[in-house]
Amino acid sequence: MNFVIIGGDAAGMSAASRAKRKQPEMNVIVLEQTEDVSYSACGMPYNIADAARKMDDLIVREADAFRHKQGIDLRTGYRAERIDPVNRTVAGTIQGRDEPFRIDYDRLLIATGGRAKTPDLPGFNLPGVLTLKSLDDGRTMKSYIQRHSVRRAVIVGMGYVGLEMAEALRARNIAVEMVKPGPDLLPWMHRDLARVVEKELRDKKVRLHTGCSIASIENAVDGLKVVCDPLTLSADMVLAAVGIAPNSELAADAGIETGIGNAICVDRGMRTSDPAIYAAGDCADAIHVVTDQKTWIPLALRANRAGWAVADNVCGHATELQGVAGTAVFKVFDLQVARTGLSLEEAGHFDFDPQEIVIQSASRAHNHPGTTPIWVHLVGDKKTGRLLGAQMVGAESAAHRINAAVVALHNRMTVAAFAQTDLAYAPPFGPVWDPLLTAANQLLKKM
Amino acid sequence: MNFVIIGGDAAGMSAASRAKRKQPEMNVIVLEQTEDVSYSACGMPYNIADAARKMDDLIVREADAFRHKQGIDLRTGYRAERIDPVNRTVAGTIQGRDEPFRIDYDRLLIATGGRAKTPDLPGFNLPGVLTLKSLDDGRTMKSYIQRHSVRRAVIVGMGYVGLEMAEALRARNIAVEMVKPGPDLLPWMHRDLARVVEKELRDKKVRLHTGCSIASIENAVDGLKVVCDPLTLSADMVLAAVGIAPNSELAADAGIETGIGNAICVDRGMRTSDPAIYAAGDCADAIHVVTDQKTWIPLALRANRAGWAVADNVCGHATELQGVAGTAVFKVFDLQVARTGLSLEEAGHFDFDPQEIVIQSASRAHNHPGTTPIWVHLVGDKKTGRLLGAQMVGAESAAHRINAAVVALHNRMTVAAFAQTDLAYAPPFGPVWDPLLTAANQLLKKM
Repeated sequence: MNFVIIGGDAAGMSAASRAKRKQPEMNVIVLEQTEDVSYSACGMPYNIADAARKMDDLIVREADAFRHKQGIDLRTGYRAERIDPVNRTVAGTIQGRDEPFRIDYDRLLIATGGRAKTPDLPGFNLPGVLTLKSLDDGRTMKSYIQRHSVRRAVIVGMGYVGLEMAEALRARNIAVEMVKPGPDLLPWMHRDLARVVEKELRDKKVRLHTGCSIASIENAVDGLKVVCDPLTLSADMVLAAVGIAPNSELAADAGIETGIGNAICVDRGMRTSDPAIYAAGDCADAIHVVTDQKTWIPLALRANRAGWAVADNVCGHATELQGVAGTAVFKVFDLQVARTGLSLEEAGHFDFDPQEIVIQSASRAHNHPGTTPIWVHLVGDKKTGRLLGAQMVGAESAAHRINAAVVALHNRMTVAAFAQTDLAYAPPFGPVWDPLLTAANQLLKKM
Repeated sequence: MNFVIIGGDAAGMSAASRAKRKQPEMNVIVLEQTEDVSYSACGMPYNIADAARKMDDLIVREADAFRHKQGIDLRTGYRAERIDPVNRTVAGTIQGRDEPFRIDYDRLLIATGGRAKTPDLPGFNLPGVLTLKSLDDGRTMKSYIQRHSVRRAVIVGMGYVGLEMAEALRARNIAVEMVKPGPDLLPWMHRDLARVVEKELRDKKVRLHTGCSIASIENAVDGLKVVCDPLTLSADMVLAAVGIAPNSELAADAGIETGIGNAICVDRGMRTSDPAIYAAGDCADAIHVVTDQKTWIPLALRANRAGWAVADNVCGHATELQGVAGTAVFKVFDLQVARTGLSLEEAGHFDFDPQEIVIQSASRAHNHPGTTPIWVHLVGDKKTGRLLGAQMVGAESAAHRINAAVVALHNRMTVAAFAQTDLAYAPPFGPVWDPLLTAANQLLKKM
């Protein structure tokens, strides 16, 4: 049996490894258009922050290890261009050699990932205007900073990648300005929490320009200028970090159903609308465990897990995934920022009667040395009593505390039941009432 | 209505405050034998560690604040000695003045807490042999260390308090030896994890003597000697930290039912066998959410929560508590140690078919700067697939990561469902697969 996988990143290589481990006699073929497989894309900002570190530190497993130790037929430089679902073939071009190829499949996994979006505006194709998605993007940025002695950077966009890169560039003593058209730094975040993040960025000398629509990027005498309304920013390098789009065109062209955010529609078993074709990773959608509706939240854990689920299903071990809770954490200088589930606004789009609370608590016990403030935002549903979402910001512990709320969401817990959980307490690690419990107790009074 | 509370610590003062807030016209009388109410007992080791810090830093709320701001009739120095459940009175002695008192109650809360156990062996009553439970114990120890320029301490027992005090005393550059009769440092902990803790203690120059039965403590020329088999230890101060016992005699003498560990039996509404009498805090038992059986795990969060539940019930707002999951965390020098639910051995005492796994993972992503090892132990039930318990040890994040498992236990999640949770990931905070998820995935293979 030919199990063909398009894309050799998290989802693709997870599927390939697991399928080969479960059924060593299976013919597992991975078509990857670049030369990189199995690397930690999320680690790129932290790598770029350190001039001395090699980019290839982020490679978790070398291509040859997959080939020789695992027996996976891994073909790098193979760019898939057409899927023929009737004859069950994938065709494309071998990069460099410019030769065509065609491969038969019995089962196909589309794990083509996503790509960094670029605003459709003049000048975003100029040299020095970069994006950050693939490991090659990372290499390009790192060498660009070096070769051009970058001292001034403008980041277009204020999402996770933009914020992580702001920290990375400041660590290299590069002046950073961030710009976006929208009015809010993190629009999904409760304003009280977003203000804490904003203050941290300003304290670390990141200049924020919200509400500035971008007109173009132009060459200037000493680098680039980002022309916005109402200001123009000068830079040696521009990072376009305005989000990602799923690489779903290949699937769509083959008649496979796409949906939310143009991602490929999959069921809980990662099956697409074609029974022989699966999709996993950043190109595919998922069920949200809070809403039971489709969502598209492209993140690494889901990609790995979905890759495994595809392998299990291809190997005849029927597997379904619960879905995603919309959990995300990131570091903004000395702050940990975490979320899971729905924001108040998101909850309003579904059949909920949402209520929210924000509290400020502490990361350690009363008067314990080193305690820092921690902010918690919870959203509950007045109709059912359910917990719908949580957000946390603080200098310590927010990134791990959020997981208690994640598990609560998976279990559709009520706020009242969550408030009764026996969360850990010791003075170096929190107040007697964990900040999440305090928030839950306060939210209960409003529900 | 007279709501009388015996004991002014966590459970008692939580109940008093909440009852008065809910029903300001209620007569809330608290009888506390010491002069201290509402302090962070768990913070004592960290306070003792710092010679410059005042012990009274640990007082969360002064007695007069309860009296004047909240209108609670708080009577410190009142030692309750007899409960007459037929005539609904509490009688006792006013300390210092040596006067008797007698008070009528409509509803009574017994929140008498626990006391440090002392081995029934010669010499444990000598000056310089101390325990640590009340704030006065803390004051005594702190001033003893100062006045006697303590340089050598022996800790009898190796539980939480003993381990926290080992760190505290080492912080003051006091030589520490720990001794216990049993063979294992932390008998409930998986050996692989216990060895990590043991290494940390040895690295921090704490000398451990397991398997040494203690015969007596005797005065020596230059301090004290702890006579054990097969060795004798010299010390300027001895801490007896062999666990606590519930102060349940007052209840038992009044005919109220006691049970596991001699703790007062309560139902989910904190009611004792006498319908007018509640019990809460370290003197009362609880239901374990994993086993649905009675347990006695005296910890601070439960005490506060139980106090609130009593107040709600006394005020006519019927409330029941889910129970405890047996969650505990503590710091041992640079290690965080966490547990929740059942150990393999504990699980074997109930109607489970337990299976376990131990894994070593990392606190941060592959190659991320500052990553440290983290060990996870999980126990599952092969019969039902349920997760039964978790233990973690590591230099960072263990104390907060455990909460994901806590919430899973409250929801009786299977290991398979827990393995599917959308736990947070970002390189500074963990691997893509959270250590708990890796452990769950590994455990699944054995179930």
